[in-house]
Amino acid sequence: MAKGNSAYDILFTPIKIGSKTLKNRFYQVPHCIGAGTNSPGFQMAHRGVKAEGGWGAINTEQCSIHPECDDTLRITARIWDDGDVRNLRAMVDQVHKYDALAGCELFYGGPHAPGLETRTIARGPSQYASDFATVPGCPGFTYGHEADKDEIKRLQQHYADAAMRARDAGFDLVNLYGAHAYGPMQWLNPYYNRRTDEYGGSVENRSRFWIETLEKIRNAVGDDLALVTRCAVDTLKGPGEIEIGEDGLKFIEMASPYLDLWDISLGDITEWGEDAGPSRFYRSGHQNDWVRHIKQATDKPVVGVGRYVDPEKMAEVVNAGIIDIIGAARPSIADPFLPNKIKEGRVEDIRTCIGCNVCISRWEMGGVPFVCTQNATAAEEYRRGWHPEKFEPAKSDKDVLVVGAGPAGSECARVLLERGYTVHIVDERDKVGGYVNDVATLPGLGEWGYHRDYREVQLDKLIKKSKGSQLALGQKRMTADDVLNYGAARVVIATGANWSPVGINHTTHQPIPGADASLPHVLTPEQVFEGKKEIGKRVMILNYDPYYMAPSLAEKFARDGHEVTIASVCTVGAYMDYTLESANVHRLLHEFGVKILGDTACSRVEEGRVELFNIWGDGFQRVYRGAGQGPRTENKTHEWHECDTVILVTGRRSNDTLFRELKERQGEWAENDIEAVYVIGDAEAPRIMADATFDGHRLGREIEDESPQHQKPYKREQKVWGVPYNPDESPELEWRL
Amino acid sequence: MAKGNSAYDILFTPIKIGSKTLKNRFYQVPHCIGAGTNSPGFQMAHRGVKAEGGWGAINTEQCSIHPECDDTLRITARIWDDGDVRNLRAMVDQVHKYDALAGCELFYGGPHAPGLETRTIARGPSQYASDFATVPGCPGFTYGHEADKDEIKRLQQHYADAAMRARDAGFDLVNLYGAHAYGPMQWLNPYYNRRTDEYGGSVENRSRFWIETLEKIRNAVGDDLALVTRCAVDTLKGPGEIEIGEDGLKFIEMASPYLDLWDISLGDITEWGEDAGPSRFYRSGHQNDWVRHIKQATDKPVVGVGRYVDPEKMAEVVNAGIIDIIGAARPSIADPFLPNKIKEGRVEDIRTCIGCNVCISRWEMGGVPFVCTQNATAAEEYRRGWHPEKFEPAKSDKDVLVVGAGPAGSECARVLLERGYTVHIVDERDKVGGYVNDVATLPGLGEWGYHRDYREVQLDKLIKKSKGSQLALGQKRMTADDVLNYGAARVVIATGANWSPVGINHTTHQPIPGADASLPHVLTPEQVFEGKKEIGKRVMILNYDPYYMAPSLAEKFARDGHEVTIASVCTVGAYMDYTLESANVHRLLHEFGVKILGDTACSRVEEGRVELFNIWGDGFQRVYRGAGQGPRTENKTHEWHECDTVILVTGRRSNDTLFRELKERQGEWAENDIEAVYVIGDAEAPRIMADATFDGHRLGREIEDESPQHQKPYKREQKVWGVPYNPDESPELEWRL
Repeated sequence: MAKGNSAYDILFTPIKIGSKTLKNRFYQVPHCIGAGTNSPGFQMAHRGVKAEGGWGAINTEQCSIHPECDDTLRITARIWDDGDVRNLRAMVDQVHKYDALAGCELFYGGPHAPGLETRTIARGPSQYASDFATVPGCPGFTYGHEADKDEIKRLQQHYADAAMRARDAGFDLVNLYGAHAYGPMQWLNPYYNRRTDEYGGSVENRSRFWIETLEKIRNAVGDDLALVTRCAVDTLKGPGEIEIGEDGLKFIEMASPYLDLWDISLGDITEWGEDAGPSRFYRSGHQNDWVRHIKQATDKPVVGVGRYVDPEKMAEVVNAGIIDIIGAARPSIADPFLPNKIKEGRVEDIRTCIGCNVCISRWEMGGVPFVCTQNATAAEEYRRGWHPEKFEPAKSDKDVLVVGAGPAGSECARVLLERGYTVHIVDERDKVGGYVNDVATLPGLGEWGYHRDYREVQLDKLIKKSKGSQLALGQKRMTADDVLNYGAARVVIATGANWSPVGINHTTHQPIPGADASLPHVLTPEQVFEGKKEIGKRVMILNYDPYYMAPSLAEKFARDGHEVTIASVCTVGAYMDYTLESANVHRLLHEFGVKILGDTACSRVEEGRVELFNIWGDGFQRVYRGAGQGPRTENKTHEWHECDTVILVTGRRSNDTLFRELKERQGEWAENDIEAVYVIGDAEAPRIMADATFDGHRLGREIEDESPQHQKPYKREQKVWGVPYNPDESPELEWRL
Repeated sequence: MAKGNSAYDILFTPIKIGSKTLKNRFYQVPHCIGAGTNSPGFQMAHRGVKAEGGWGAINTEQCSIHPECDDTLRITARIWDDGDVRNLRAMVDQVHKYDALAGCELFYGGPHAPGLETRTIARGPSQYASDFATVPGCPGFTYGHEADKDEIKRLQQHYADAAMRARDAGFDLVNLYGAHAYGPMQWLNPYYNRRTDEYGGSVENRSRFWIETLEKIRNAVGDDLALVTRCAVDTLKGPGEIEIGEDGLKFIEMASPYLDLWDISLGDITEWGEDAGPSRFYRSGHQNDWVRHIKQATDKPVVGVGRYVDPEKMAEVVNAGIIDIIGAARPSIADPFLPNKIKEGRVEDIRTCIGCNVCISRWEMGGVPFVCTQNATAAEEYRRGWHPEKFEPAKSDKDVLVVGAGPAGSECARVLLERGYTVHIVDERDKVGGYVNDVATLPGLGEWGYHRDYREVQLDKLIKKSKGSQLALGQKRMTADDVLNYGAARVVIATGANWSPVGINHTTHQPIPGADASLPHVLTPEQVFEGKKEIGKRVMILNYDPYYMAPSLAEKFARDGHEVTIASVCTVGAYMDYTLESANVHRLLHEFGVKILGDTACSRVEEGRVELFNIWGDGFQRVYRGAGQGPRTENKTHEWHECDTVILVTGRRSNDTLFRELKERQGEWAENDIEAVYVIGDAEAPRIMADATFDGHRLGREIEDESPQHQKPYKREQKVWGVPYNPDESPELEWRL
């Protein structure tokens, strides 16, 4: 605690959890990363760096207790058999190296887990179709089976068996997962539980399954493990479900004797963004109006989340007795070393979670490893050997010119400086961050600016320490001649991308006739940010983009009193279904009266109007008519819509002119002492911020490798043919005949 | 060819493909199954049974040539390194056991492959955002990078290197994949290719990349392998893209000298259901108006697909010289033994593909193994040891009563009979098939009746051979007393599910006030099929279901001249995005004037009207107001809509009364010589036909195992911690420091 602020001492005070001692108040709550038990190295290394970074307890992601809970297409851990125990033990051992506790979240999803690998049917208190989109876009797809008494006993035994396997794997904590409408919450919540026997009806009856299961787990593992339960104390739907002032506190009071720690959250699974709140809608600690009541019902310690990134706020909620332990998922991803940085008095070095929920988006869509917008090393620890805070020293003294200080350029420069290279960063803007400076001015996206802020602070510190390095902002745009004459051995082009000024889009790959942002009434998003053109009363947003730009601009204009229409070929903000922003974005657009024309494309833009058409207007029958004629009927749904201003959110284009000019003049490189020119981030291809940041980071790490423009191979965690997963199994094909 | 029809001899005539000989005319074209290279046993066994079943050539699924082509979240094979070569060799060796050729499809997706695992950026002729929804619901999400000359050479070398690895793995064929808008098709098609150099412009220039790549592959592997290319000869968009009468045939003519076999398809990736046509819209051989022109441009053999299931039709298209070889994906999944059954004159035993595209739906959604509605053993060959045509003999002489002859019951009975059990099947209907008999009457779904037909024929044959077995149709509904008195040792309840007659749905899990299908103007789908109630002019479909029922009924009523509105909480037919039916369903509903009210739920049904509301009308701000009050504002968007008839497509409920009554009377089982009662299929929980069929099959296979109600564990193909994927790799965590 040498250099830290003593006001934060409370955060470093140990606390007992059953038979275990948590060394501080930093607790990484269970959260998915896309590793499961099929990528044990990824699981081990990602959790391990958090233990190294000072987190006192590290949990798995949700860990299925039995094949009857199979969340595939989404990736979760599993603790079904000896193979899983072995694979999870790698994580436990790594976490223990740093004196942290390892926890296993016992997960049974009911019909919220669709069983698309195992093809099993889940049990629950009643039969219902999942309100969650178990398959993206498809709520109501997966049904469960109402458990009878035999099935209840069987299910509870699955929990106990899984807890015993967790003990075998070396875990210190087991967490009976009852938040996000999973497992025992389906029994507690009358929204799901329609039973009339002793497991349904009164809150005592609806609590029975949960409490019995806690008892069975305790009987199975005794005090060897501390027993935690993750619980949503208010499902945020008002009367008829779980309210903190009603069943929420009653349940906490009843169940407290049976456990060692409460891990508290809010909400359900269908809108779990009400818990893992995106910064667009929710500030740090947003759950506290609900959570602050809990301590009146329990004397057991309480973990609470709230995207806490500021130690002052953390100390405040602990000192106020709202919670005892700071739970974190996203902040621990953005900065695995957050606790240590607080302890060491390096608060300005914290890589603050921006609350964009892109990490979550990957679990939601299923089947992929997660990513973090701020932390490019997340999910890359094992496979690429990237440590979030440590870097390979420079392997040469070749200096680097980085053109562009946006997400890719600033991160690339940061990594190169950390490694000890001499780096010159040149940008036209007066500030590091590139287009993040614009995006952070959109309604609700202010915290996205933390991405810029972190790099701004770090570049400033690193450049001060690096003789010869330089950050040159507010410069005129560099030409190929400028670069050739600059005198850097290596050049990194990170000039970003722009929205098409002529309406090029993914549907036609062509401009939209008449769409021309050089006209006064037609604007690209960049021109909106510039603020030089007047916006008319009636705004028409032509949208071909699946992410945030169209709904964000619509909100901005609507808040400013404009009449806004979005004509969109795809669902507006479709990707935000995955970032958990979608439901509230739709509520917001509805509340602000934004009109959405779905399945709609634009065929022509004129002053004062746009011609729109229904994309399904070309008939369902396909007939061969010979060359020169399409196989469908003519689409006659085109109609003119009046508007004053047209916004083109149609598609992005790399700003790669500088890179391509330099590439064409490759013959002049040697005479100018240039060894290599690379293009990264959006200048190579437009992508989300997380991936642009990753790309800059990658080049910084791999600049001495063979062909640094292209990624170095990484370790693949895959099934090896001929090697069985479980010890006594034959890996051969064995017909059941 | 002993017992076969000599009219089909042409199908069993060998044909040369370059240096290889295809033993007959049955060619399993590349198709995804969800195995990739991470489930080598699944890949090996699934492909292997097709070789055993008589297919002359068996291809992999699309097999990525390099990490720059990463299709994750969708699962594809990969041939990146030695680890992949080893894993794929298992498949090759298995295929070779049956004298079939093994082919590897060399896949490079460009921006249609989103790189969500590798985080790479794909190269292409120009820069464009993928028109495909690389992330479900999100077209336009993934952008590529325009390749310069260096990058072209590099990419072509990746193809050649991959081909050499394919040779190392033992493959006989390599297939340069240029259909579905992948790989070289992006260079040929001016929709993507906007270049002005020698790789763009004229058809000769746009063909250059493809032909050069064929040459490089040939130079790399020589004549050791036969060289195939899969090519969409018409992208079905009319002028401006590839038309068979224009660039299609010109390209075939130019490229023919460089390859040994054409593997022909149509269309693009965004609407690849135009190629893999669902039976709802396309009949067998639907591509022939386009494909019949090909032979005029090439003297190389041609494989063509068209969901061919009927040997007569197959012989016809080969004899007519339209194609030389019958390509098949879906028919080979539904019946891996299709060629052998034709050869042996057992055409009535063919398990005919119903064209539902549920197999495809699993690839589309990503991250999961595929399934087949007809063939319950698909994807289960390795992990459960299920052979599609062979069964473990009965382990006891305990007879089985199966109550219900729908998808689950009829399949369970079939498997039990194949195993030699005495089986009694009882059903109320006059026909085997359960609700499939109704569904197959919906517009476009007639072929779904093949599911029933197969089981009807098989049960008939098997019962004739099984002394004591019986199929009792048209019976009165069985009661618990009937079952107890029946005298069977084991009872299987397969009584299916019904649509809720009171509007129970996944959103509220409650009835909709006033929704009551006992009233004359309110109908369940079953009541529609019954046809006893009159349908009024204005039909309102209340939809909470993500699959086919609402759009199918809408089509039916619209065709009959009704004015149809669908009020839907979710995207209408959302799951059909995954089965490739969605685009044409939307075109059809548009063409028939069906009105869709999206994001709309129903709060009340009255005679002549329904009260609907916008599900996002409750405000985006969430405020704690204490117990008894929800945290959002009141939704005031409720409006009455007039209609004459209301159809409730709200949710399904298991018909499990009989099962639960029997379970409650468990004390009477022994005295009635009943040993066990099981519940399967929709009666356990409603699910899609494929999974109900699977469940019946599973119980048939596992009825002698411990706890047959619950699935037996299967072999899991997973990464084993500590075992490296590639030979020279350390599996340990190695920081790059």
